[in-house]
Amino acid sequence: MPDMASKHTFQTPRGTRDFYPEDMAIRRYIESVWREVSINHGFEEIEGPMFEHLDLYKQKSGEGIVNELFSFTRAGGKTQYALRPEFTPTLARMYAARAKQLSKPTKWFVIPNHFRAERPQRGRLREFMQWNADYVGIPEVGTFVADADIEIISVTIGIMKKFGFTPKQIRIKLGHRKSVEDRLLRLGVPDVHIESSLLLLDARQKLETSKYVNEAKLLEWSKDAIDWFHPENRTIIRLDDDLDSLDLPKSEIDSMKHKRQERGDLQGELIRAGFGEWCEFDSMIIRGLAYYTGTVFEVHEASGKERAIAGGGRYDHLIELCGGPPTPAVGIAMGDVVLRLVLDDHDLLGPDRVSVPHPDVFVISLGDEDSDIKLKKIVSDLRSENHHIRHTYKATRKLKKLLGEAEGLGSRLVIILDEKLAEGEVTIKDMKQGSQEQVRLNDLRREISERLNRA
Amino acid sequence: MPDMASKHTFQTPRGTRDFYPEDMAIRRYIESVWREVSINHGFEEIEGPMFEHLDLYKQKSGEGIVNELFSFTRAGGKTQYALRPEFTPTLARMYAARAKQLSKPTKWFVIPNHFRAERPQRGRLREFMQWNADYVGIPEVGTFVADADIEIISVTIGIMKKFGFTPKQIRIKLGHRKSVEDRLLRLGVPDVHIESSLLLLDARQKLETSKYVNEAKLLEWSKDAIDWFHPENRTIIRLDDDLDSLDLPKSEIDSMKHKRQERGDLQGELIRAGFGEWCEFDSMIIRGLAYYTGTVFEVHEASGKERAIAGGGRYDHLIELCGGPPTPAVGIAMGDVVLRLVLDDHDLLGPDRVSVPHPDVFVISLGDEDSDIKLKKIVSDLRSENHHIRHTYKATRKLKKLLGEAEGLGSRLVIILDEKLAEGEVTIKDMKQGSQEQVRLNDLRREISERLNRA
Repeated sequence: MPDMASKHTFQTPRGTRDFYPEDMAIRRYIESVWREVSINHGFEEIEGPMFEHLDLYKQKSGEGIVNELFSFTRAGGKTQYALRPEFTPTLARMYAARAKQLSKPTKWFVIPNHFRAERPQRGRLREFMQWNADYVGIPEVGTFVADADIEIISVTIGIMKKFGFTPKQIRIKLGHRKSVEDRLLRLGVPDVHIESSLLLLDARQKLETSKYVNEAKLLEWSKDAIDWFHPENRTIIRLDDDLDSLDLPKSEIDSMKHKRQERGDLQGELIRAGFGEWCEFDSMIIRGLAYYTGTVFEVHEASGKERAIAGGGRYDHLIELCGGPPTPAVGIAMGDVVLRLVLDDHDLLGPDRVSVPHPDVFVISLGDEDSDIKLKKIVSDLRSENHHIRHTYKATRKLKKLLGEAEGLGSRLVIILDEKLAEGEVTIKDMKQGSQEQVRLNDLRREISERLNRA
Repeated sequence: MPDMASKHTFQTPRGTRDFYPEDMAIRRYIESVWREVSINHGFEEIEGPMFEHLDLYKQKSGEGIVNELFSFTRAGGKTQYALRPEFTPTLARMYAARAKQLSKPTKWFVIPNHFRAERPQRGRLREFMQWNADYVGIPEVGTFVADADIEIISVTIGIMKKFGFTPKQIRIKLGHRKSVEDRLLRLGVPDVHIESSLLLLDARQKLETSKYVNEAKLLEWSKDAIDWFHPENRTIIRLDDDLDSLDLPKSEIDSMKHKRQERGDLQGELIRAGFGEWCEFDSMIIRGLAYYTGTVFEVHEASGKERAIAGGGRYDHLIELCGGPPTPAVGIAMGDVVLRLVLDDHDLLGPDRVSVPHPDVFVISLGDEDSDIKLKKIVSDLRSENHHIRHTYKATRKLKKLLGEAEGLGSRLVIILDEKLAEGEVTIKDMKQGSQEQVRLNDLRREISERLNRA
């Protein structure tokens, strides 16, 4: 027998969670919304390993992520692995391995666990679930940029709607990595500092102003650049804003108009698709990961009080870096941690949406040992018919108490075995309607199935 | 931008799997059977972290498992973690943490990933999915041993049936850890060697005879003990065998009868519950893990050609070792790796059981740019109604080719936008019946919903 051990080691590891049944119901609910809406939008589900070779992350994701990895080797082995901190490198590896056979576009979604070895805080844990949807490769029809971006934005809005959010509660914020890079270069930021500058821009809202300025100076930014990207100097343009009416220099407005055309009229397509009221361009949207190359987006609660609910963008070089052919791609990821906080804030996890599974039938024996034996047989028979059947494990034979237990579990029907059992009869009680009926024990299977199929 | 890297690092880590959509459909199918049957049997779903403190495994599971762990620390941290190799320690920890509030019995199931750092081989991978069902705590009614064991065996058989197995294809093999321990002691095996002796017994079938004998001698077994447990000396007793008719010494038969009574008439209960034809007692069934204390069981393909499909047993001390009150418990675990091999062998993964999700509607545009724009709107509208909608990404406008694509995807309905669109009409084609009808574009949502709801 193993030794008795002190109690203190048996805690949930820091930054991870235990899911007891009520919490698990919420997790399954979130997963089911992610899955259903993704499938309805024509995405196919995949999965990969929980860990990858460490090099896949080291070489693909930039420094932003490498410090946050749980990495390990097998005892006696040399190969270095890391728990997956995100899914995109796995997706790129999987796509590259089958690029020739896969259709264009390939639309995949996945609902993996991820792991980050950072300090746990509100909205950030060391283990979390995350939905990813990716659109990979250029189809024969459609302007790639707009169509691919819109499909990803569309499935994301579909998910938000399905959760019960309104456009007033949620903002889909759009940015463009390329135009920020161009801007940095035009403002004189040296080429070698562009990547680090993007990381600084992504983090700037969380920094104190003095820290932002100091970091920018270290990256050899001009005063103009520091002013332009100053955290207080944020521009948000609603999708239905008329650009000409904005309080901005004409050169800026012209540049915006030009950019909108370059992007394959993303704005016009989003408005036509009915997403105008959900979306806005926001100069703060950069995304920290090094592999983004074009449009980037984040989903935020409208008041801005939590971290981003979701984030993603174009990553046109990653498939090639993983050994595949040059393949543009766009994807989004939504974790469960911030999402749960926001769903809770908006009362969107109530019993009308989320609950543990309710029994179809609760079986009660009020009789003698014979009826207890019959109970077991009935329970077993009805379970073979794929019904969800429960019974009490309590000693009580009080009908009222047992009906209370059935009600507490939310059971639809109750079968009562009482003295009538001797005549081959049992009672079926409908808990919603309050009605009850005697039926022959021999007909019980059929009677139950009929009632349960009646919606 | 990250550096270009050589291709060789971007392989799936050894012993793990990539799940492309067709494979993922099988995985989801297996999970859905596990989940549905567990819920129908009154088990509630939980989950825990993907890793635990290393000590939880070190101190609870015996040496058999410690060598197979992937363990790690956080960079700069001292706490040692390990990827979970099994779920029972997590379950015991979670139960112990809430033992006072939880009902008796608590019936939980979970479908986690697990990780073992061993050499991958047929039926054994480094990452795998595993269903676990556990019955924890003594209820007010029912003989605990028989009732708890039977509930676990019952949900297991329910799962096997749901997968389509017959009793001829599957054996539920039962053993008893206590009676093996008693036997070892009676045959003179020293107390200090009992735990190691059980490990040897669990492994003996895979050992060469000479190795078995040598190992047994190292554990100070008598010649009688070596003969009694010799791998060739296997006893299998079908549940419906009459003990008195068996070709065994009378003292053995009496001892068996006595044990059957001790175990709360497990045999009688199993036969009454209709499980007689699935079950047998098998002297080879020991289970390797140190925490088992009573009945142990394994599920095998009848020909015995693969490893065990599932295994479990009583573990009456583990909750207490994890800081909870003394609580008897019984559980079972079924991994997906051997299961898939056996399902495949028995042709139980055909398209009648497993498939990727089929679209409800495939939308085809044969017209001009206007009909392409209308297509996007229709696709988007119908997706808002929670239907699964697809369309082509190919340049072709040939109806026959596009209908072929719809058929290949298994779409139920097809909407065709052709020259009639100018008059506000579209065609709905039912792919099963081959029939087609013109409907008003304005009525399309309703027409589609009606057709899809018609089962």
